Amino acid sequence: MNGADLVVKTLADCGVDLCFANPGTSEMHFLAALDQRADIRPVLALQENIATGAADGYGRLAGKPAVTLLHLGPGLANGLSNLHNAARALTPIVNVVGDHATTHRALDAPLTSDIEALSRTVSVSTLTVPVKTGVANATHTAVKAALGPKPGVSTLLLPADAAWSEADSSAQISSNFINSNFQHSSASLDEAVRILRQPNSVLLLGHHAVRGKALEIAGQISDKTGTRLIAQTTNPVIDRGIGRVPITRLPFPIEAALATLQNVPAMVLLGAKAPVAFFAYPGKPGRLTPNDCKIVDFCPPAGDAIASLAALADAVDAYGVASHTTKAGDRPVLTGLLDAGAVGHILATLLPEGAVIVDEAITNSVPIAAATATAAPHEWLQNMGGSIGYGAPAATGCAFARPDRPIVTLIGDGSAMYTLQALWTQARENLHVITIILVNRTYKILQLEAEKLVTRTQGNAIQKTLNIDSPELNFVKMAEGMGVAAERVETIKAFQKTLESAFRNPGPTLIEVML
Amino acid sequence: MNGADLVVKTLADCGVDLCFANPGTSEMHFLAALDQRADIRPVLALQENIATGAADGYGRLAGKPAVTLLHLGPGLANGLSNLHNAARALTPIVNVVGDHATTHRALDAPLTSDIEALSRTVSVSTLTVPVKTGVANATHTAVKAALGPKPGVSTLLLPADAAWSEADSSAQISSNFINSNFQHSSASLDEAVRILRQPNSVLLLGHHAVRGKALEIAGQISDKTGTRLIAQTTNPVIDRGIGRVPITRLPFPIEAALATLQNVPAMVLLGAKAPVAFFAYPGKPGRLTPNDCKIVDFCPPAGDAIASLAALADAVDAYGVASHTTKAGDRPVLTGLLDAGAVGHILATLLPEGAVIVDEAITNSVPIAAATATAAPHEWLQNMGGSIGYGAPAATGCAFARPDRPIVTLIGDGSAMYTLQALWTQARENLHVITIILVNRTYKILQLEAEKLVTRTQGNAIQKTLNIDSPELNFVKMAEGMGVAAERVETIKAFQKTLESAFRNPGPTLIEVML
Repeated sequence: MNGADLVVKTLADCGVDLCFANPGTSEMHFLAALDQRADIRPVLALQENIATGAADGYGRLAGKPAVTLLHLGPGLANGLSNLHNAARALTPIVNVVGDHATTHRALDAPLTSDIEALSRTVSVSTLTVPVKTGVANATHTAVKAALGPKPGVSTLLLPADAAWSEADSSAQISSNFINSNFQHSSASLDEAVRILRQPNSVLLLGHHAVRGKALEIAGQISDKTGTRLIAQTTNPVIDRGIGRVPITRLPFPIEAALATLQNVPAMVLLGAKAPVAFFAYPGKPGRLTPNDCKIVDFCPPAGDAIASLAALADAVDAYGVASHTTKAGDRPVLTGLLDAGAVGHILATLLPEGAVIVDEAITNSVPIAAATATAAPHEWLQNMGGSIGYGAPAATGCAFARPDRPIVTLIGDGSAMYTLQALWTQARENLHVITIILVNRTYKILQLEAEKLVTRTQGNAIQKTLNIDSPELNFVKMAEGMGVAAERVETIKAFQKTLESAFRNPGPTLIEVML
Repeated sequence: MNGADLVVKTLADCGVDLCFANPGTSEMHFLAALDQRADIRPVLALQENIATGAADGYGRLAGKPAVTLLHLGPGLANGLSNLHNAARALTPIVNVVGDHATTHRALDAPLTSDIEALSRTVSVSTLTVPVKTGVANATHTAVKAALGPKPGVSTLLLPADAAWSEADSSAQISSNFINSNFQHSSASLDEAVRILRQPNSVLLLGHHAVRGKALEIAGQISDKTGTRLIAQTTNPVIDRGIGRVPITRLPFPIEAALATLQNVPAMVLLGAKAPVAFFAYPGKPGRLTPNDCKIVDFCPPAGDAIASLAALADAVDAYGVASHTTKAGDRPVLTGLLDAGAVGHILATLLPEGAVIVDEAITNSVPIAAATATAAPHEWLQNMGGSIGYGAPAATGCAFARPDRPIVTLIGDGSAMYTLQALWTQARENLHVITIILVNRTYKILQLEAEKLVTRTQGNAIQKTLNIDSPELNFVKMAEGMGVAAERVETIKAFQKTLESAFRNPGPTLIEVML
């Protein structure tokens, strides 16, 4: 058994069963090792950011890591921005990067670069597989690091000679991981309870606290104490829809965020970080809470949200309180133009229970999120690191974690062009992903930022770099070019019909919505 | 004048007149500064690796830097692999990366990351524009670093508050750059001359030594001394074709490279590095020269190749020798299948004088390069860093450096999918770029590597990750989806006709060649 065989065996022993790959020469032995067994499924991506984004989507929903397979420093670089997003989502990923043979590094061959430096910008752990001995241990340690206590991207560099050399496989590896989840102190419990009982206080939820049982307990606490529930602006996964506790997210625009929090005297953080502005603006604060707002950090984003919320519920005697949950929404009669609101209402009407929505709709997200808040229960994923191009890849990964459910991707036309190659993997694997492209032919969010930031008249440079209207992109042709059935829709009726058919068809579909 | 205005003014004062941009919120003030003047042309790319690859292609041919405009760490990450390629090509690029306001960094907003660490993996210089004072100086220093003595990627981080704050513009900046080119010692001149006179010796050329006047002198030296001229396997730009000194490149496959150099007793490096294998293989050497080969490093890749070759020519009395140059090649009558050789001969027949060829044809490159060696004189660009996805972006940049000439891009179907978004920029700017996609529905180079490296039977994993045959990519549809006219060809006649028309049409064309 060579080193690559032992790495792959150890990954499989740890429960890893999916590999998103864009390999090169230095990864051949890893591929050969995958070839020898049937328990890790290889999935090819045509560009590395598709592989890493897919691993993010998968890891968020599966709660366990997929392995990626990338080619040296430049391959890692190509996948780095979606690893950044995954790191911010605390998504477990075992990020395998092939490296030159250890003997070859000093020769400075063309593909040589500082892979460790790249890795450290996104990884909770960066390890190199040793040659011959310690292979299984390094692999096991990498999987463990991906899973916590602060979960995330765990990078495992695999030098070619570590891969091809005969490896010592005698070491016994335990595959049990004990996640050491955060325990709050009794002092902070007392403080948190005091805040929950204070008028106008906020319980800010994020990560695991906006899912399933945790969200239900949060609803009971809110009903009992009157404290306002607010979710972070973005979260890895929110459980939403009928029967779930409704929760408002802190708005993205800084003015709206400041207004939301302006009179908040105190805040308990539960799975959330103290809210800060996405960007700095001249004369505006970076922290979104009032200066005198008392903040208690009760449970960090990676902590055990259910146990922490249960402790709070216990302390305020919220158990047994029937928490306020979402009812089916009234739907307007849609007769006008096909705008983002109409897209949201049609989607809400047709959405099957248990569907997954991946949101990269940027400026069009707000009306669609509002309309679908009262749809059938579903999981809603957001971009956690702010790097555009996460949507189509993440949706691809979600389809492996939820093979029996449709995945809906909402993407702006500008955003879609960063990682559109994900469509090909969706077609290759016949994934039930419905990609809805919201076409406005501009980087709309940047147009809004430009209006806000720049007082001078906008001229040629701003127009030329923020509009993508010339030439007009045709997503139907691009999708068909990658084997995905596609339709352009311009009316409410057409969108409704195409979406209905897409939910029925088990393979991928792209719908180009002309707004 | 705010900081962004002063950065842009200083860039323009230093002669920068082109900006390849994929901006975000933190770059708004830079865009506004571009808006105020007409002397730096903004060109939008839909993904960052298009912008950086274009800057590589431009810088190689223009001999001066374009400026890029990227958005924070993830934007830099997305453009990093083509910056890696540019760094290996010693291409001057001023790589401007917007950053959060200095006051905002500590808040760890979602897009925060270690930009400096990313930058240092590819940059000769990483500088941050200070707030208020020293803005022009930092910008000037960055341009200077891009141009040498070791030219390359010079990264300039522009924090949002440095951009928006009023800047002190009183400092006087000189825009004269003195490139301190390498001077060989007289001892190494004597040694080099001894080697040139030795039987079976090699003069290994690279970078500036395979261009124009330098190559002509090298030919004279070879004719006079009998020393063999060999070029590096890859070079930023080679001047080739009729009337130029013919030069063989060291082959890529390790067996062929070792065979080429097996009896070489001594070698003079001129603009080249001592040859090493692209990858390590078990039981094969990393250095491609025999162990006892005497190597004299006479002029480094960034050095003054013309002056160095002139010194050698002087010492061996080669001036006045009529150097052996390329004659027009005989063309076979093409009657069979449309294979890479036929593509090469048709291209060679139709290629206009002064055209530019960007080569990312990988396994199909060898026959096309052979056929075009005797075509009209042209410039031939290669991937210097080995990171796939440089072709279409680099060709886009070349079109700005050679606006009056056609640019031909040769790309494999696998390679094309990394950065196909470059087509949109080619259509938007109406660039005369002819993209020839060589379709074999596989990562052929990796198939060859797999056969070489892996002795075991290939199974599902290798087949699934190295073949891209299902679903079949349709490049005509993808190109049309981005506004580029495209044609699929399956016969010699069809390719000939389509290529003729593409050379006549001043805009971009894509030709999908079914091999």
